[in-house]
Amino acid sequence: MKKTVLTIITLIFTTSLFAQFGGPPRLVSPEIDGNNITIRIRAPKAIKVELNGAFLPVQVVETPMGRMPRTMPVEMKEGEDGVWEYTAKDVVPDFYTYTVSVDGIQMLDPNNLKVIRNGRNMSNYLIVPGEKSNVFLEAKEHKGTLSKVWYPSAAYGAECRMYVYTPYGYGETNKKYPVLYLQHGGGGDEDAWSSLGRASQIMDNLIAQGKAEPMIVVMPNATPNQLASPDVLDPIEGSTDLFSMDMESDEFHSGGVYTKSLVEDIIPYVESHYSVIAKKEGRALVGLSMGGIYTLYTTARNPELFDYIGVLSMGFTPGRDAKAELTPIKEAGYKLYWVGCGETDMAYDNAERLLNELDELNMEYTYFDKVGGHTWDTWRVCLKEMAPLLFK
Amino acid sequence: MKKTVLTIITLIFTTSLFAQFGGPPRLVSPEIDGNNITIRIRAPKAIKVELNGAFLPVQVVETPMGRMPRTMPVEMKEGEDGVWEYTAKDVVPDFYTYTVSVDGIQMLDPNNLKVIRNGRNMSNYLIVPGEKSNVFLEAKEHKGTLSKVWYPSAAYGAECRMYVYTPYGYGETNKKYPVLYLQHGGGGDEDAWSSLGRASQIMDNLIAQGKAEPMIVVMPNATPNQLASPDVLDPIEGSTDLFSMDMESDEFHSGGVYTKSLVEDIIPYVESHYSVIAKKEGRALVGLSMGGIYTLYTTARNPELFDYIGVLSMGFTPGRDAKAELTPIKEAGYKLYWVGCGETDMAYDNAERLLNELDELNMEYTYFDKVGGHTWDTWRVCLKEMAPLLFK
Repeated sequence: MKKTVLTIITLIFTTSLFAQFGGPPRLVSPEIDGNNITIRIRAPKAIKVELNGAFLPVQVVETPMGRMPRTMPVEMKEGEDGVWEYTAKDVVPDFYTYTVSVDGIQMLDPNNLKVIRNGRNMSNYLIVPGEKSNVFLEAKEHKGTLSKVWYPSAAYGAECRMYVYTPYGYGETNKKYPVLYLQHGGGGDEDAWSSLGRASQIMDNLIAQGKAEPMIVVMPNATPNQLASPDVLDPIEGSTDLFSMDMESDEFHSGGVYTKSLVEDIIPYVESHYSVIAKKEGRALVGLSMGGIYTLYTTARNPELFDYIGVLSMGFTPGRDAKAELTPIKEAGYKLYWVGCGETDMAYDNAERLLNELDELNMEYTYFDKVGGHTWDTWRVCLKEMAPLLFK
Repeated sequence: MKKTVLTIITLIFTTSLFAQFGGPPRLVSPEIDGNNITIRIRAPKAIKVELNGAFLPVQVVETPMGRMPRTMPVEMKEGEDGVWEYTAKDVVPDFYTYTVSVDGIQMLDPNNLKVIRNGRNMSNYLIVPGEKSNVFLEAKEHKGTLSKVWYPSAAYGAECRMYVYTPYGYGETNKKYPVLYLQHGGGGDEDAWSSLGRASQIMDNLIAQGKAEPMIVVMPNATPNQLASPDVLDPIEGSTDLFSMDMESDEFHSGGVYTKSLVEDIIPYVESHYSVIAKKEGRALVGLSMGGIYTLYTTARNPELFDYIGVLSMGFTPGRDAKAELTPIKEAGYKLYWVGCGETDMAYDNAERLLNELDELNMEYTYFDKVGGHTWDTWRVCLKEMAPLLFK
């Protein structure tokens, strides 16, 4: 009998799990109880343990770049068995990231498997359910497929990676779908919209509820010197990164090889490999921050391509000829020009220049201002608000 | 000018990156120089920093479950600026996981974006290039697509998630592809074969080099009480987990609802949604450890389904009627019966029972023993060795 048990136990564990035997019990962290969040971490030898989370109160601080909202770390309290704990109360339902810091070293909560990467920074995340945040949770059913696709790029002379969301039911009929091309910002990559942006969950929920048209969402890597996210491939050797460019140059605003690849590689690839409406009325181009710059640039030079345009947390930077950029779009016609930016967003001045110019030119647009700073909290809400207006 | 620079800089950073301003420079970690690996971590206040990595020397230790190979942590050495460092020399080219421990708290290397989850344990990983490990690196070109697919399961009464790899060129012609169904082990989930098992990279490389037939690889979640990996969905409420089952029961060996779903939901879904050879000669069923048990069970009861069978790090546990399980397969006929298990694998006794019975029954098989313990190091190599024999 002993031998049988031994044999059986050994076969259902992979070796890494053995390390757990005899150790202290796993902690429940995060514990989400209504609107209260408790984070726990075992650190018996630590002197000071802090928690930094987007669900903690925000303070506006002076930075070299002006006044910025910043969450302030809070001290966790040591209880029995060296377990440190902090409870944040009455937290507004939303998606939140957090990290802990043990004697000055930032680390992840080892008991929370929900881990996310923002550029080069890792954190944990959690969702406090509620009316605002339910759209970020996994839909109960009728979920779409998220694919990591390598497309051949003549512009880069290599294969580049993008994420493609196909909605529930895709491929089961001959139906042709419209396509939303969704661009991340500076420091991001093709992973960002589906992880930090919860794009799959937002689209699954909106489509299942009949609020958005079933659509394909294409999320390229829009960083000119990357073929794929930096956890998969190193940046292209010898390539110029954004920070070394002359920031008033057309090269900087053009996205260099990326926007070329978007128009010449990505769109043709999608239209020859997926069942799509390969017409202006079936294409939307949306980008946030740096991706918003690329949206402005690309739509101005290809006004025949997109009927739906979205600029999030961005607009015209000083020195750009807004009238020249927008006039081709006005002349070609479009169905939706959507701008999402809040007054506390550091790109607000740019957004205001865009809105003013749209007014000047008598171009119709939708402006959504019920958002906060230059963060994913804003962009998730933008996608949720904008997606229902696309392809209708 | 100042304002322009300010505006531009602010727009290319997402807020989390701001935290980096003014901080110490990023460390290069891991640094891979030939066969030497250097890990660095900044921890100026720490008293003791250790490194635990699969590339460190292995010691065989006594455990409650018998003698097991285990890597021993090494102490890192503090240098200037509170940066701790350790160099492992003459490391055999391979894929390795590691973690660091600062004053007793296990954490990830914050400078390494390559992060991987094994069940409930997170670690970093790195690859030392070389003849053995090059198949684990990203292929230069002709890469396939990896998709996260939710299939509707009548067996579970819900949508379940699986990963589907489609090879380069899939969908560009009317070609029909064979399908490898690849099952993880106990404690794993649908993410395991593509992350820990490097399945996409192995298949990309083998197919690009003409060593393996282009095939679709389906990686389901084979844990009976999970609809998806635990970072995505909590286990099914009220469900029995593996560890609570009577381990000699047929229920335990059957995989309960999972193997039912494999035969009744997954295979029909794949065969109605993908361009596949929907015949015995176009199907392979392979599993490791617990997934090997499910392979034995499923192929015995559905001998008409699979021409290719693979059992990794598993075989017949004591008390199973090996002859009754194998006879239907012998009678139905098959093209490949592949067994991969090394003598240091804790499931070796089980594998030996399988091999003996195959001999008894005069059933042809391929036995691969050039592998080590009950770990992903073994299973990656098994996939690399076995895949070229499939569908030929």
